[in-house]
Amino acid sequence: MAGGRKLQFGAGLRGPGGNMAGWRHPDAVADASTNFAYYTKLIQKAEEGKLDFAFIPDGLYINEKSIPFFLNRFEPVTILSALAAVTSRIGLVATLSTSYSEPFTVARQFASLDQISGGRAGWNVVTSPLEGSAANYSKAEHPAHEKRYRIASEFIRVAKGLWDSWEDDAFVRDKETGVFFDPDKLHRLDHQGEFFSVQGPLNIGRSRQGRPIVFQAGSSDDGRDLAAQEADAVYTNPESLEAAQAFYRDVKNRAAAYGKAPEDIVILPGLNPIIGETEEDAERKYREVAGLVTIQDALNFLGRFFDHHDFAQYPLDEPFPDLGGLGDNQFRATTEQIKRLARENGLTLRETALRVTTKKSEFSGTAEQVADRIQAWFEAEAADGFILGEAYPGALHEFVDQVIPILQERGLFRTEYEADTLRGNLGLKYPVNRYVKGVL
Amino acid sequence: MAGGRKLQFGAGLRGPGGNMAGWRHPDAVADASTNFAYYTKLIQKAEEGKLDFAFIPDGLYINEKSIPFFLNRFEPVTILSALAAVTSRIGLVATLSTSYSEPFTVARQFASLDQISGGRAGWNVVTSPLEGSAANYSKAEHPAHEKRYRIASEFIRVAKGLWDSWEDDAFVRDKETGVFFDPDKLHRLDHQGEFFSVQGPLNIGRSRQGRPIVFQAGSSDDGRDLAAQEADAVYTNPESLEAAQAFYRDVKNRAAAYGKAPEDIVILPGLNPIIGETEEDAERKYREVAGLVTIQDALNFLGRFFDHHDFAQYPLDEPFPDLGGLGDNQFRATTEQIKRLARENGLTLRETALRVTTKKSEFSGTAEQVADRIQAWFEAEAADGFILGEAYPGALHEFVDQVIPILQERGLFRTEYEADTLRGNLGLKYPVNRYVKGVL
Repeated sequence: MAGGRKLQFGAGLRGPGGNMAGWRHPDAVADASTNFAYYTKLIQKAEEGKLDFAFIPDGLYINEKSIPFFLNRFEPVTILSALAAVTSRIGLVATLSTSYSEPFTVARQFASLDQISGGRAGWNVVTSPLEGSAANYSKAEHPAHEKRYRIASEFIRVAKGLWDSWEDDAFVRDKETGVFFDPDKLHRLDHQGEFFSVQGPLNIGRSRQGRPIVFQAGSSDDGRDLAAQEADAVYTNPESLEAAQAFYRDVKNRAAAYGKAPEDIVILPGLNPIIGETEEDAERKYREVAGLVTIQDALNFLGRFFDHHDFAQYPLDEPFPDLGGLGDNQFRATTEQIKRLARENGLTLRETALRVTTKKSEFSGTAEQVADRIQAWFEAEAADGFILGEAYPGALHEFVDQVIPILQERGLFRTEYEADTLRGNLGLKYPVNRYVKGVL
Repeated sequence: MAGGRKLQFGAGLRGPGGNMAGWRHPDAVADASTNFAYYTKLIQKAEEGKLDFAFIPDGLYINEKSIPFFLNRFEPVTILSALAAVTSRIGLVATLSTSYSEPFTVARQFASLDQISGGRAGWNVVTSPLEGSAANYSKAEHPAHEKRYRIASEFIRVAKGLWDSWEDDAFVRDKETGVFFDPDKLHRLDHQGEFFSVQGPLNIGRSRQGRPIVFQAGSSDDGRDLAAQEADAVYTNPESLEAAQAFYRDVKNRAAAYGKAPEDIVILPGLNPIIGETEEDAERKYREVAGLVTIQDALNFLGRFFDHHDFAQYPLDEPFPDLGGLGDNQFRATTEQIKRLARENGLTLRETALRVTTKKSEFSGTAEQVADRIQAWFEAEAADGFILGEAYPGALHEFVDQVIPILQERGLFRTEYEADTLRGNLGLKYPVNRYVKGVL
């Protein structure tokens, strides 16, 4: 392990804490997913804790069975732009799909967020797992999994190309001579590819961090390869420390094959800490939130991964049904995980649904115990850091107040931001513009 | 004139004040178009003046001849989302094109801005005049003028439909019973049209103003008709009071034909006031900015309206060249105006270029004189209010400090915001959700 290696943390912001029924918790802000004051309070707490970034997940399709806080929530680019104005150091990472958007607009919106925030923007690239998205976007069909990743790869390359339209010192702005920019430092992309043809240049220049940080969140084989090739950071959701280690090794190895150093790609599993005064107190907090979930909630949640399949049609206390390839074209890594969980443990449908929805985090116990577990994962090279979810209302506040100081004391986490850009805090290299002479 | 009729004002924010060379002015902030602190100061001044809204223009294509502050500027939805967080009452109107975007994303981003800001969002619908936009969006050709307006009309209807996905009281959020929403108040759009098929529902509910305000900025015949049918407010750029009166009457009459009352559509010409301590002082301010423009700047600016035509190929001091139908598919109303100006006044190319770029506003003189002229236009029913541009650096600050108090004293403009939504301040009716029983 490198001597200077430090933990990185993101704070996932998505509405009320807890599982899909978490909004029912007595302490929950039930309308959190569209409550700007709530988001402001949460991100400012994360910044107080010196966390690297806030992270906004997303989706492009809902129906009446969707998770409550998916039904009515802020769009990621708009909410993060607003949050840029009430923060000064924390990174701002928005999820945006490459399957239903245009590279020129996406590159532009992220470049704009990057300039507004002084170099704190990140883009979490997803390919939209839900088939239903196509019907919201005038498309006859949802592209197949493999095709979505080919689109994503080309899309990211176009965005990166557009972000290099202007060299860092292109804008001269000399009032005396009237020279606003140096035409030799303006570049047209002229991309002609399989899915996109984009001329450019982009009508906005580079930010203090060069360009937005690219996150990737798919854990399938296609997803890992895309991450290794194009991403600066990867979000993943492993089942265990061992699975996380295998994923970590695999992605770092794939990145090496593309000529990258291990520190060029940051691997960040999801982490939903449950912090109690004692282990029993943490267990009580867990049970309180788990107990809010009805079996109908759990079946709806499960159905979402399998093309909104109706699980209410099966007997609850018989083995998990055989679904064939259902869901393969959507959340592929997740559906494989669920089927394996049921098969390997001989679970019924009821047990599977409840395990998936109310699975207890292994990062549970006193603040000291949670810090120990984080240290163990970090030192075992299962993670470079974590993206925090709220397992119950108030979890992020407790993490910042109780766990962060322990990690700081152990020298595992910063006590002050090292940089004023997201790139700087993540320890990533500055990307020199491709057109700078001597680089090409 | 109705007794309660009051002026409405928007503040156009686009970078440094003045013409395309305004950034060279000694008082100009040369990097204003990507300077968040500058935008914050400007919008907060506008809010201090109780202006109705800030207004961000936009474009989707640049080349090396574009106006300097078009080359590198914030994207409208992101900058307005950020500005939502530093303001509390002023409206936030962003320009977004219907020719190169998807209704689901656009409806969602504006709904999100509307929720973030507590009901202050507006969408200025444009169809993208510049042919070059197609090459940035993987399109073989830019749609013809008439087709762009047909697309726009369907696009707005889809957006409005998506904004009605959830009735106002759809979200119950009863922690005891576990009922998050009333399924009878969730509606799928199922739109199948000529250009779009969009299923819905939208994954965000309505705001305090029901839905974002729709602005329309095209003055061609197609543009006027679209405005009359779908818009709540219209931006226009008339040559004279008489032309403004004719436009005003025409749009209000067209709106009446669609069953609207005159107060259902607000007509707002552009206004670039030049305020001096004396008339001579105003004239000096005008000449100072006009003198910054070189003939090359002026030819480039002119060229932009005519498909980036190269005017440098013509003799400067001979009559304005015959261009045939060049530019008809882009800024149609503007190119017709320019050709008429040259023909009717027998202008040379040089004269035409300089008149177009450095035309002196008739709203020029002392604060009292500017207020008189505004009152004259308002009372002559040439305008319901104005969208202010900055003819020189500091113009908006001077307008708020010097002209607004005079208009307030005359009872023509508010002294306090009447409402906390943009809709309320513009005096527009609340749009009842189409699915509310008794409405359909």
